[in-house]
Amino acid sequence: MQNFVQYTPTEVIFGKGTETQTGKEVKKHGGSKVLLVYGGGSAVRSGLIGRVEQSLQEEGIAWEEFGGVQPNPRLAFAEEGVQKALALGADFILAVGGGSAIDTAKAIAHGAANPGEKLWDIWTQKVPLTKSLPVAAVLTIPAAGSEMSDSAVLTNEAIGKKAGINTPFNRCRFAVMNPELAATLPAYQIACGVTDIMMHTMERYFIPGIQCEMTDCIAEGLLRTVISNGPKVLTNPGDYDAMAEIMWCGSLSHNNLTECGRGKDFSVHKLGHALSAKYDVAHGASLASVWGSWARYLYQDQALYRFVQYAEKVWGISHDGKSDEEVALAGIEKTEEFFRSLGMPVSLTQLGVQPDEEALRHLSLDATMGGTVKLTRIRPLGAEQVNEIYRMAM
Amino acid sequence: MQNFVQYTPTEVIFGKGTETQTGKEVKKHGGSKVLLVYGGGSAVRSGLIGRVEQSLQEEGIAWEEFGGVQPNPRLAFAEEGVQKALALGADFILAVGGGSAIDTAKAIAHGAANPGEKLWDIWTQKVPLTKSLPVAAVLTIPAAGSEMSDSAVLTNEAIGKKAGINTPFNRCRFAVMNPELAATLPAYQIACGVTDIMMHTMERYFIPGIQCEMTDCIAEGLLRTVISNGPKVLTNPGDYDAMAEIMWCGSLSHNNLTECGRGKDFSVHKLGHALSAKYDVAHGASLASVWGSWARYLYQDQALYRFVQYAEKVWGISHDGKSDEEVALAGIEKTEEFFRSLGMPVSLTQLGVQPDEEALRHLSLDATMGGTVKLTRIRPLGAEQVNEIYRMAM
Repeated sequence: MQNFVQYTPTEVIFGKGTETQTGKEVKKHGGSKVLLVYGGGSAVRSGLIGRVEQSLQEEGIAWEEFGGVQPNPRLAFAEEGVQKALALGADFILAVGGGSAIDTAKAIAHGAANPGEKLWDIWTQKVPLTKSLPVAAVLTIPAAGSEMSDSAVLTNEAIGKKAGINTPFNRCRFAVMNPELAATLPAYQIACGVTDIMMHTMERYFIPGIQCEMTDCIAEGLLRTVISNGPKVLTNPGDYDAMAEIMWCGSLSHNNLTECGRGKDFSVHKLGHALSAKYDVAHGASLASVWGSWARYLYQDQALYRFVQYAEKVWGISHDGKSDEEVALAGIEKTEEFFRSLGMPVSLTQLGVQPDEEALRHLSLDATMGGTVKLTRIRPLGAEQVNEIYRMAM
Repeated sequence: MQNFVQYTPTEVIFGKGTETQTGKEVKKHGGSKVLLVYGGGSAVRSGLIGRVEQSLQEEGIAWEEFGGVQPNPRLAFAEEGVQKALALGADFILAVGGGSAIDTAKAIAHGAANPGEKLWDIWTQKVPLTKSLPVAAVLTIPAAGSEMSDSAVLTNEAIGKKAGINTPFNRCRFAVMNPELAATLPAYQIACGVTDIMMHTMERYFIPGIQCEMTDCIAEGLLRTVISNGPKVLTNPGDYDAMAEIMWCGSLSHNNLTECGRGKDFSVHKLGHALSAKYDVAHGASLASVWGSWARYLYQDQALYRFVQYAEKVWGISHDGKSDEEVALAGIEKTEEFFRSLGMPVSLTQLGVQPDEEALRHLSLDATMGGTVKLTRIRPLGAEQVNEIYRMAM
């Protein structure tokens, strides 16, 4: 087991009707002037924003709304939010929504606490982040895990780049999670979320050479739970118990618990981010479209036993005379079959993207920061190898 | 799934050599005058206290030692610590040791922050706890889980009572966990620790009637990991990877992660605490001595499917023509067999205790707060039923 730090200070308030506790939580965590960040009109129409605002009012907390966050949230929009937060004198940023709203809130918190700096300079760590405003979330979409994670991702439209930043300042003070709030999500969004949740665990799981039995048990259990409950919420998002499993798995998948003693890889995310930045495709779908090719490119040699364990423990595939290679490949196939059953793409064509040679080269360079970074802790992948994976995924 | 709050703010610094980071962590968490609470001379002789003190010195932090914590830590000793903390003007209480040192540190923190109140009044919640000093731990014994839990237990010798208090103020600011520090533990202490870790998970697991698939996966995985690594550390406490699994499981077992959506029971702990208070027996051993009888008293009816699932998922017992009852009983037997293999008692006689009728009556009343409290969320147990379980355990 490798040395690690595990720090998950977010207070989780989970269950039915918990959004009415939002005001009390904001007060407890020191907020008095709140910028309320959310996405489209559905949160307004459903009455959720109204219930959250009522709970703020009951605690004597002032707020202003900042709606209109888009999927793959934009830098320019976050910069607008920073100005709004500064004008309000906000001391607390509250997101209501999924990963896009929460990541935007995190960005606004960083920007508003450092008004002399350009947000993209903070984001790309040109300027070190030493302070931020407190952030919290009322979660409506189980997917990104941003409600408990130290991650946030923004797209800089001006230069066509999607980039993430990991920092303890990205940890929400609290996260209100009511699975009922996800009961009206469209099937495609649920499927993307389920894929993203699985991916956050798999992006840590396959790193070879380190014994982490307990971390493996959590990861495998999480994947089994998502595989068992994902189809249920896709058919019936009002299935409370199933949605509760998915929502809780979404947080546990990305709060670092699934990497303790092993660390993380996140190379599939790099490939997906490049696709989302260029084609504005949904994050979960971008991951599903390349994962199979990524896995087939890497499953052999020192990583083989990890892919075998995955097939056995997650999918219940036994050897029955099959070689390790065959078992590993059967696990990869089962995963793609599952993605397909959710309506997720397992190729770039299915994702609706057909990059030519030039576009492939750009994607590969983008995923590897201009070819300067080697991806994966399984086997170093440069721009050339990434290009090959994209090509396999066509 | 039931509504729940999950709050684990403790920053875990896990791995080899991490005790040298203690000073930096204390400083980061605002400490400048530290009361250093520890047990016997082994932490001094091993050089651990010296390394921790050096790390404090390097950060310019003042400290005073307060050694001599005993197993089943005593109220009177904690009260002495409160006086010492007040005399020093301590703003941070740091435990070096296992559950006894950490629980004593928590008690001192509560007492020193509330010098006008009697510590036992705070402990028994006659006086509500509204403030405390920050506490942290350098863990040397994987067992109690106190390094991440909101629990602490003290024995009031004057009245022969062992009682616990759960409060967010019991959460350590940070926990330094280096499995190397446990490499010199005696076998009996390791066995008690392994038992305690399993018990913290089992005390949450058997509550029937609530779907919690992810929580089940964590609980079952944790038990399998402890069962697989426990015998390894018993034979060779220097097996770093095995001890790392046990140490990490110890924290996860009792930081509430294994109860999310289900809650807890802790009735076996009530039976064990009564035994420890009366006979000063080791905590883990007291639990092992009664668990089998507790389980056989309760495994039927609505809890049967939980005991069947436990047998299947933790011990790999399959039906093979056996009835549910037989599978459940086989799981209970496997557990007792495992305890025996660790050298743990599975009866009161093996614990070295032979209470007469009068003593049994006292134990049963003590475990049920004078017969006023019904134990377990499986089936209500009053003093009479508890008496019957103790009798079965003879």
